Order: sequence, then structure tokens, then C-alpha cells
Amino acid sequence: MPVVGVLGLGAMGLPMARRLLEHGPVAAFDLDPARVAAVAEAGATTARSCAEVATLADVVVVMVSDAAQLDVAVFGADGAATAMAKGDCLIIMSTVGPNTATAVADRLRSQDIAVLDAPVSGGTERAGRGELVVMAGGSDVVFQRCREILDCLGDTVVQVGKEVGDGQTVKLVNQLLCGVHIAAAAEALDYAERLGLDPVAVWDVVRHGAAGSFMFNDRGARMLDHRYEPVHSALSIFVKDMGLVIDEAQRAGVRLDLAENAAALFSEAARAGWGNVDDASVVEVLRNRPRE
Amino acid sequence: MPVVGVLGLGAMGLPMARRLLEHGPVAAFDLDPARVAAVAEAGATTARSCAEVATLADVVVVMVSDAAQLDVAVFGADGAATAMAKGDCLIIMSTVGPNTATAVADRLRSQDIAVLDAPVSGGTERAGRGELVVMAGGSDVVFQRCREILDCLGDTVVQVGKEVGDGQTVKLVNQLLCGVHIAAAAEALDYAERLGLDPVAVWDVVRHGAAGSFMFNDRGARMLDHRYEPVHSALSIFVKDMGLVIDEAQRAGVRLDLAENAAALFSEAARAGWGNVDDASVVEVLRNRPRE
Repeated sequence: MPVVGVLGLGAMGLPMARRLLEHGPVAAFDLDPARVAAVAEAGATTARSCAEVATLADVVVVMVSDAAQLDVAVFGADGAATAMAKGDCLIIMSTVGPNTATAVADRLRSQDIAVLDAPVSGGTERAGRGELVVMAGGSDVVFQRCREILDCLGDTVVQVGKEVGDGQTVKLVNQLLCGVHIAAAAEALDYAERLGLDPVAVWDVVRHGAAGSFMFNDRGARMLDHRYEPVHSALSIFVKDMGLVIDEAQRAGVRLDLAENAAALFSEAARAGWGNVDDASVVEVLRNRPRE
Repeated sequence: MPVVGVLGLGAMGLPMARRLLEHGPVAAFDLDPARVAAVAEAGATTARSCAEVATLADVVVVMVSDAAQLDVAVFGADGAATAMAKGDCLIIMSTVGPNTATAVADRLRSQDIAVLDAPVSGGTERAGRGELVVMAGGSDVVFQRCREILDCLGDTVVQVGKEVGDGQTVKLVNQLLCGVHIAAAAEALDYAERLGLDPVAVWDVVRHGAAGSFMFNDRGARMLDHRYEPVHSALSIFVKDMGLVIDEAQRAGVRLDLAENAAALFSEAARAGWGNVDDASVVEVLRNRPRE
């Protein structure tokens, strides 16, 4: 297997890099030296910049947090684009929205660099097990070329469209559900507490029935533990993602009542200081509200 | 196994009666003769009234649609209470809210009739397989006495509290999640359609990741089929249940943004004529909205 480049080693990028290392060589970079040390310990070749990763790998996976970081990682002074060769391929796995993905692809086309738009869903644990859902947008040729890498990371790998941006658009639908489900888990557990129920007992019953969701299981457990270490997805990520969902809805003239509501709750939580920790902390906004 | 009585043979009651018949004799009644014929064909003894069921069985399961039907089934002129003997037991499996369950138990206490409050979750298919979640509220003695019946109907049977009403209160938390998840499924699939995506393809990808929920799987499939036969839970049930959720929240001074939103959507759907068909039809309200 040729060297795969990985840019961004956060809550998702690091377990994904570890997973790729089980299948072949990886060259990786992150601005945070602690993360670089962690991936080196796992056996990756570490680079001093995104550009250096691009010199070592023909295919570069970007798993940074947002569009601003993507811009720096690809088009910055030490960005991947400065070192990528004609025929190389960039896989955008971050959630950055369809417009950003399309703009990156347009800009790299002049260098004959192919782009696959392939955001993922499933969270940290599943990333480490190679059990992500991958929503890929791009040509058949590029999708097939990246297929082995995607199959290493995901157990549900689907080419959802032929254009860069299609994966991001599907991811917006995914994030609408994820954001509303996290907010619903918070609302339900806070409601249980305020009705005088034991929220742990309630959670452990109702999650087995029609009320069950990935998020109620996953985030619900951490809401009940009151533990919000930032090893999982930071709350600020959902502020960003719900913003992308709503921007695209406004562009298309779609009214989104539940998503707007969940977005407002994440924003309120970020203003209250929970932005850099686990998004399960969104429940604290509700817990801190006075009774009406 | 002694005869078990079943009152109410709708979308949940009929498969539950069939399931009970696999384990022992059942006596059943419903106001709808077609439903009575269906349960007779499955092998049940059919009665001409709730009272007659009560003469045939020591333990009577009530699985009617709402509090008004429960009142008629138990306290009506031909209601079960007219024929229940001292020491008999009534299991309330309908969702009627904690106050109604408590009131029924209080009223039957003078006749020395025990009540177990045991609402369920899981839907029609799981009811038929005995895989419901049962949230039981009642004394240890009554819970143990009913345990065999509950275990026949559910694979997750939990005594969530020692008081009648405790099961109903937990069920409210369950219904908050169910109602919001159904509304979220509708919002997400309508969003996908309006963004020009193939909603079937989107559904079949994102349900495998962090966006997954029982309701997105179950109701989502029927939203995509545009098929709303009333064999499943009628939309009016969710109008009722979200009303119970919000009533209890107001009593406790709890603000519920998402649940209020979902409740408004179900009410809008009922006003638009979808009340007597499958609650997946709630998506049609969104599909019929003009672009903004």
C-alpha cells in the first residue's frame, strides 16, 4: 500500500490515522505537537508541515476541524498544495459544507490535483475500529482510486454523488439529525431529572425501545456521567455544523424548526463556555435553567 | 397459565394478544368487531364486553388508545370494574399519563383490585415478537405477580418505580424522544429532497452512522414510501402523547423547546387530516410547505 497522508489529528483524525497504519504506511501532520507525538508512537512518519506530508504521499486525507483550517492546510504557505504533484489526490473528510469543498476542488483543478469529497459519521470509537459511514462525492475514477483507503476507515462506504460537494450535502442531512438527536437527549434527560426520576435508570430503559438513537446511547451516557473531556467531538464543532445546515437551508428556502432550535441550544452552550469540551455538555445549559 | 384478559385490540393490543396466546389462554374484547374476529381467529376466547373479559380472567391487560377509552373500559356500564373480584389485577399498558393511572388505581383500591402501571414502547412489529420495552410502576408484589405476562410481551421489562404512575412518567420521557425523533426524521428527509438529493439514498447511508435512530429507520422508511396505512400507530396518538408530555412539563415548570416544536407539527398534521393514519404522514406537512 502506498503512503497515505493525513492532515489533522484531532478526535477523529488520530484514530483514523491509527486505523490506516494497520493497513500501510502513513505520513501525518498536526499543528499540535502532542498529537504528532501520539501518531508517531503509533508508527506514522511525522512531517513538519502539510507540505512535507504532500511530498511523502500521493493521496492526502484532510481531517481538520473546519473550513478555515482546511484553507490553511491546503493553501497556506506550508500547505499541501505547494507540494502536491500533478495526478495527486486530496480527500476532504472534514465537514466544511458543499460550497467550500467545491471551491477547493476548483482551485486544485488547475494543478491537475483530483479531489474526493468524503465526510464521515460515527464518532471517535468507530473511527478507531474502521466502522465509520463515509459519504463520498466525486467522479467514479477518483472514488475507485480512493476506495481502498475509504474501506479501511468505514464499513458503510457510499458514493452518494458524482460531484465534489455531494458528500458534504448528504453530511448536512446527517448533521441535522445528529444535532437534533443530541439536543433531544439533553432535553429528555433534563426532563427526567426535573420530574424526579432517576435519569440513569430512565436512560437505561428507554434507549432499548422506540426512543433509541445512536446519540441518546452515546452522548446520553456522558450527560449522565457529567464528564465532558474533550476527547470526543468538541461542542464548537456542532455550532459550526448546525450553522452549515442552516446556511444551506436558507439558500434553498427551507424552514427547519427543530434544527434551528438545536442550533440555538449549541450556540447558547458555547457562549456559556462549553465550546471546547465534549458536546454532551450541552445538557448543562438545560440543567442550569431556572424552573418556569 | 391462567386466562389473561385483554381490553383493546388496536395496532398494539392485537399483536400483544397474539403473543400472549402463544403462552396461554386469552379472553379479549374490543368495540370493533373486525378486531374481535381477528383475535378469535388467533385462538382467543372473545367476550361481548369488558365486564365479560373480567369475569373470565384474574389479570386484565388494558391496551386502549387514551384516557377516555380507559375510563369507559374500566368504569363504564359494561366496564371491567363491574365484574372484577377482590384480588384481581389490572395492568394499564396504554399511555395515559401519571395522573390518570394514579386516579384509576385510587378508585379500584376500594374494591381491593390491584393496579400495575406498565406502558410499553417498541411498535407493532416488536409487540408481535414479544420484544417490547415495558416500564412498570407498582409494588413489588404486584410487579412479581404480573411478571410472567410482562416477560411474554417484552424483552426489556423493568420495574421503574414502586408507585402506580412511575411507569407513565418514564413513558413521557420515552415519548418526548419518540416524538422529536419522528419530527426530526421528517425534517431531515424533507431537507434532503429540497436540496435535490435522492432521499432514499440519503436515508440508506446516514441511518448507519451517528444520525441513526429507531424512528429514522422505522418511520423514515414509510415516509419515503409515502405509504401511511393505519396498521401502525395513528398520528392522533402522538398528538395525545406529546400533549401529556407538555402538560406534565408545565406542571413541573420545565421548558421543552424541541418537544413543543414536535407537538406543534403533529397538531398541524392532525388539522390537515392525517390524524387517523400512520404518524409517518407528519412529513407531508413539511412537503406541502412552500419554499421561503
